[in-house]
Amino acid sequence: MPRAVREKQMLDAAVRVFAAQGYQAASMDEIARRAGVSKPLVYLYLHSKEELFSACVERESRALMTAVLRGVDVRQPADRQLWDGLRSFFLHTAEHPDGWAVFHTRARTHEPFATAAAKVREDMVSFVTALIHAAHREQAQHGPLPGPPAGAEGKEREAVALAQALVGAAESLAGWALTDSRTGGMSADQASATGANQAAATMMNFAWAGLGNLLEGRPWTAAAAQPTG
Amino acid sequence: MPRAVREKQMLDAAVRVFAAQGYQAASMDEIARRAGVSKPLVYLYLHSKEELFSACVERESRALMTAVLRGVDVRQPADRQLWDGLRSFFLHTAEHPDGWAVFHTRARTHEPFATAAAKVREDMVSFVTALIHAAHREQAQHGPLPGPPAGAEGKEREAVALAQALVGAAESLAGWALTDSRTGGMSADQASATGANQAAATMMNFAWAGLGNLLEGRPWTAAAAQPTG
Repeated sequence: MPRAVREKQMLDAAVRVFAAQGYQAASMDEIARRAGVSKPLVYLYLHSKEELFSACVERESRALMTAVLRGVDVRQPADRQLWDGLRSFFLHTAEHPDGWAVFHTRARTHEPFATAAAKVREDMVSFVTALIHAAHREQAQHGPLPGPPAGAEGKEREAVALAQALVGAAESLAGWALTDSRTGGMSADQASATGANQAAATMMNFAWAGLGNLLEGRPWTAAAAQPTG
Repeated sequence: MPRAVREKQMLDAAVRVFAAQGYQAASMDEIARRAGVSKPLVYLYLHSKEELFSACVERESRALMTAVLRGVDVRQPADRQLWDGLRSFFLHTAEHPDGWAVFHTRARTHEPFATAAAKVREDMVSFVTALIHAAHREQAQHGPLPGPPAGAEGKEREAVALAQALVGAAESLAGWALTDSRTGGMSADQASATGANQAAATMMNFAWAGLGNLLEGRPWTAAAAQPTG
C-alpha cells in the first residue's frame, strides 16, 4: 500500500481519536489499532504524538479554509459571497465534525497547536474583514462605517471587530448545530445540507441584515445607548 | 488570618497560574508560592489540583454571570437590556482577563471542567434567548420570527440559534479586545470602560440592528439566498 494511503489512514484514525479524547488522553496504541497498522509504523511516518496531532490540526484546518474559499466567487456581491462562504463553512463542519473538534476545541489549549489553530482563525477573520470592506465600497455613497472611534484606523478597527463578531457567531452556531442536529429521517448528507442552509440563513438574518443596516449608515441608536449613570 | 481570606489568596493565585499555563502545566508549588502559603495548606483547604481548578472555574464563571445579571434591569426594553448586559460582560472580562481565560479557554478541553464551563455558557444563551422572545413580543404585531422551519418548535429553535450566534460573537469580541486593547495613555480602569463601551456598541450595531430588522419582519432576502446549483 502506498505511503500516502497509509498516512491518510493514520490521520483519519488520529482525528477520530483526538476528537473524542483530546490530546493528552489519546493513545498511540489506539490510533494505530484503528488505522489498522502497527504502532512502529505510525512513529516511522509521523514521528511522535505531537507531530501527529500537528499534522491533524494542519490537515483539518486547511480543509475547512479550502472548502470555504472554494465556495465563494469573489466576483459576486459581498452578501452573496458571505452567504456562499457561510454555507460552505456549515456544510464542511457538519460533514467533518471530528476535524472541527480537533482544531477548534482540542488544539485550543495546547501550544504549539493553539498557535496553528489561531492562524486559521485569523485567515477567516481577514477574509470576512475584506468582505466588509468590499460591502462598504458597494455602499460608499452612505459614508464611512459608523461606530467609535473615527478616522482611518478606527474604521479599520471597527471592520475587524465586526469580522471577529461574525466569525465567533459562526463558530458558536456550528458547534451548537453539531450537538443539536435533528435529522428527522433524512440521510446524513441531506441532514448536513439542510442544517448548513438553516445555519447560514440564521447567520445572514442575524449578521447581514445587521451589517446591512450599519453599512447603509443606520447603526443601532437609541436612548438606551447612553451609559446608565 | 481567617480561612476565607487564605482561600481567596489561593484562588487568586491559582486563577493567575492556570490562566497563564493551563491545567496540566500549572504546578501546585507555584500556586502556593504566589499565594504566600505552604503547599500542604493548599491541599488542606482545596484537597487536590482538580478541586482547586474546579473551584476557580466555579468562582470565575459565577462572577461573570452575576456581573451580567446585575447590569441588567429586566423592566427595561429588550434592546436596552442587551446593551446593558453586553457592557457588563465586556467590562467584566476586561477587568478579569485571567478569570475569563480559565473558564472560557483553559476549562474547555478537560472534563469535568468543560461541563461546568458549558453550563455557564448555556445560562447566557438562555438569558439571550429570553431577551429575543421578549423583543419579539414587543414587536408582536409583525408576526412570527422569520426563518426556517416554521411552527412553534421552529420558532423556538430559531431564537436559540440566534442566541447562540450572539453569545459566540460576544465571546469572540471579548477575546479579541483582550489581546488588542489600546490604552493610549488611559488608566487601566478607563481603558476597560472605554473598550467595553466600544465592544458593546459594535455588538449592538452588528447584532441588534440585525435582529431588529429580523424581528420587524425584514430578514435578509436576496436572490443570493438561492442555492448555487
